[in-house]
Amino acid sequence: MSLLVVGSVALDSVETPFGSRENVLGGSATYFAAAASLLTKVSVVGVVGDDFPMGDLQFLQDRGVSLEGLEKVPGRTFRWKGRYGFDMNAAQTLDTQLNVFEKFEPKLSAQARRAERIFLGNIDPVLQMRVLEQAENPRLVCADTMNFWISGKRAALLELLPRVDVLMVNDGEVRQLAGEANVFKAARAAQKMGAKSVVVKRGEYGALLVDREHVGFAGMRAEPEGRSIGVSSFYSPAFPIAEVVDPTGAGDSFAGGFLGLLDRLNTNDPAALRQATVMGSTIASFTVEKFSLDRLRDLDLSQVRRRFDAFRSLVHFEELPGHVA
Amino acid sequence: MSLLVVGSVALDSVETPFGSRENVLGGSATYFAAAASLLTKVSVVGVVGDDFPMGDLQFLQDRGVSLEGLEKVPGRTFRWKGRYGFDMNAAQTLDTQLNVFEKFEPKLSAQARRAERIFLGNIDPVLQMRVLEQAENPRLVCADTMNFWISGKRAALLELLPRVDVLMVNDGEVRQLAGEANVFKAARAAQKMGAKSVVVKRGEYGALLVDREHVGFAGMRAEPEGRSIGVSSFYSPAFPIAEVVDPTGAGDSFAGGFLGLLDRLNTNDPAALRQATVMGSTIASFTVEKFSLDRLRDLDLSQVRRRFDAFRSLVHFEELPGHVA
Repeated sequence: MSLLVVGSVALDSVETPFGSRENVLGGSATYFAAAASLLTKVSVVGVVGDDFPMGDLQFLQDRGVSLEGLEKVPGRTFRWKGRYGFDMNAAQTLDTQLNVFEKFEPKLSAQARRAERIFLGNIDPVLQMRVLEQAENPRLVCADTMNFWISGKRAALLELLPRVDVLMVNDGEVRQLAGEANVFKAARAAQKMGAKSVVVKRGEYGALLVDREHVGFAGMRAEPEGRSIGVSSFYSPAFPIAEVVDPTGAGDSFAGGFLGLLDRLNTNDPAALRQATVMGSTIASFTVEKFSLDRLRDLDLSQVRRRFDAFRSLVHFEELPGHVA
Repeated sequence: MSLLVVGSVALDSVETPFGSRENVLGGSATYFAAAASLLTKVSVVGVVGDDFPMGDLQFLQDRGVSLEGLEKVPGRTFRWKGRYGFDMNAAQTLDTQLNVFEKFEPKLSAQARRAERIFLGNIDPVLQMRVLEQAENPRLVCADTMNFWISGKRAALLELLPRVDVLMVNDGEVRQLAGEANVFKAARAAQKMGAKSVVVKRGEYGALLVDREHVGFAGMRAEPEGRSIGVSSFYSPAFPIAEVVDPTGAGDSFAGGFLGLLDRLNTNDPAALRQATVMGSTIASFTVEKFSLDRLRDLDLSQVRRRFDAFRSLVHFEELPGHVA
C-alpha cells in the first residue's frame, strides 16, 4: 500500500459569504494528502517557493505524509485567489499566480516510482504524463483536469486518458471534454476516450461513479426503450451540511478520501470503488465546514467513521413486505 | 388501502429542446393518478370543462382509478403553457388559464371522505383545507404547494401545515417558505411550522426526505461541531436518464409513486417513507422520458420493478474488510 500525489501546494486567498482568508494553506496536493493520510501512507511530489511557511505542513508529517518529494526552490509559491457567492457550487477565480509552479518538473524518487496508486492533481497533462513515465507499475492511476487543459492541451490530455484508470472531474469538465450536455452520456464518452472509470464530482449534488466494468450501461440493454442509463453506475449524494463555509479543496479532499480508502483496502475492485466514492464524499463534507485546511487538520478517523455511518443511514432503504412483486 | 388525490386535470402545451405538444393531457391529479394507480386504488377529485376529451382518461379507468369525483362543468378546461430550455430543471410558464378551475370547490363523496391517504395537489391552500374538513380520519395527508400560494396565501398555508404529514415541495419552494437558503435548514424550518415530514424534490438532483421521527437532526447531536445535519434524513438521487424529453409532471408522478407505495404497503412508518421516496423517484424517471402522460400510459409494474432494482444497485455500497475501524 502506497499512495503518491502530484499537484500544487499553494497559498490561497478566499472570500465566501462567511468571511475571507489571505494567503492560507491550499493546493490540490495539500488537500489530497490531508484527506488521504487519515487512511493510508501518502507521498507528495510538488514545489513551493522560499516564502512558503513549511511549519504549516507539520500536521501532515505528523500523520506520516512523506514530503521528501516536495521541492523548495527560490521564488514565490503558487497563489490562487477566488471568491464564492451564495451559490457555493462555483468559484470565481480572481487571480492565479503560477510562480515557482511555472517551471515545475515532477521528479519521482526511487520510492515514489514504486507507488501502487497515483493521483495526478490538476496540472498540465504533459506533466501528468511525465509522472506516469517515471512510475514503475502503478495499480491505479487517477487524474483530475480542468477547462484550461481540456481546451488548451487537448491532444496531450487525449494521449493521457488511456493510461487513466479513474478520471475524476466535475460535471462542467466532463461535459466540456465530451461535448455532450447530459452528464451520464458525457461520462460514457470519456470512457470511450480511454478512461476506464469516471467519477463526476457534482458539488452539493454528490458524485457519480461510472465504472469500468459497465462501459455499456446495463440499463440501456435491460430496458428496450433505450433511454435510461445507470443500472451499473453508482451515485452518492453529498453529505448534507447546514453551513458550507468554504468549498475550496472539496474536490481534492474527495479524491484523497477516494484513493486513500482504495489504498487502505488495497484493491481496485468495483465494490471498493463504490465504497471509496462514499468515503470521498464523507471527507469532503468536513473540508467545507471551515476555511482552508482548518477542518481537515483537526479531523480524526473516529469522526470520519461516525459520518461514514451517518452516510450509510442517509441512503439506506429496505424493501418492506407487500412491495411490488 | 385507499388513496385520494385532489388537483388539476389539465390540457398542457409544452415546448422542450426535443419538440413541442399542444393541448395534451396534463394536470397534477392526472400525473399523480397515473403513477399511483400502478400500485394501489386511486380516486380523483377535480374538475374539467365540457371541451375535455374524456377518452384520454380511459387508461386510468382501465387501471382502476375512480373518476367519480371528477366533475365536468360548462366552460373550458384548465390550461397551462410552458417551455423548458436545456436546463430542464426549471419550466418557464408562458400562460396559465384557470378556466373552470377558477370556481372549483372540491366535493368529496361519502367514499372519498373515508380515504386513508390524501394527496393535496398544488391548489389554493384554502381549498386544500376544505378537502381536509370533509375528510373523516385520513392516516396520512401529503400536500404540495408553490411560490404563488407561499407569498399570496401564506396565512392559509400556515394554517394548513400542522395538518400535513408530508409537505412535498421543490427546493425553491421550501427555501421561499422558510426564508432560508440552505435546503436542509429550510426543511427543518418547515417542520417547525407544523409539517411532520418534508420531502424536497430537487429535479435531476434527486429528493430529500426529512422525517418526522428526527426533527432534531441526530447528526447535530452526534457531532459537537454542530454544523452537519442529515444522519436522520434520507437522500435519493434521481435515476440517471440519458434523454429527458419533457420534465412536466415529474413532481406529481413522484408524489403518486410515493403515496401509491405507502398505500400499497399500508403503513406510514419511517422505513416505508424511505422506500416510498425511492419509488417516487423511480416512477418520475419514466415520466420525463416522453411528452405528457405518454410514458406513464404504457408503463407496467414489471418495468417499475426492474428500475427500482436498478435504483437499489445505483446507491448500494458495502463495507469491505479493512475499512476504517
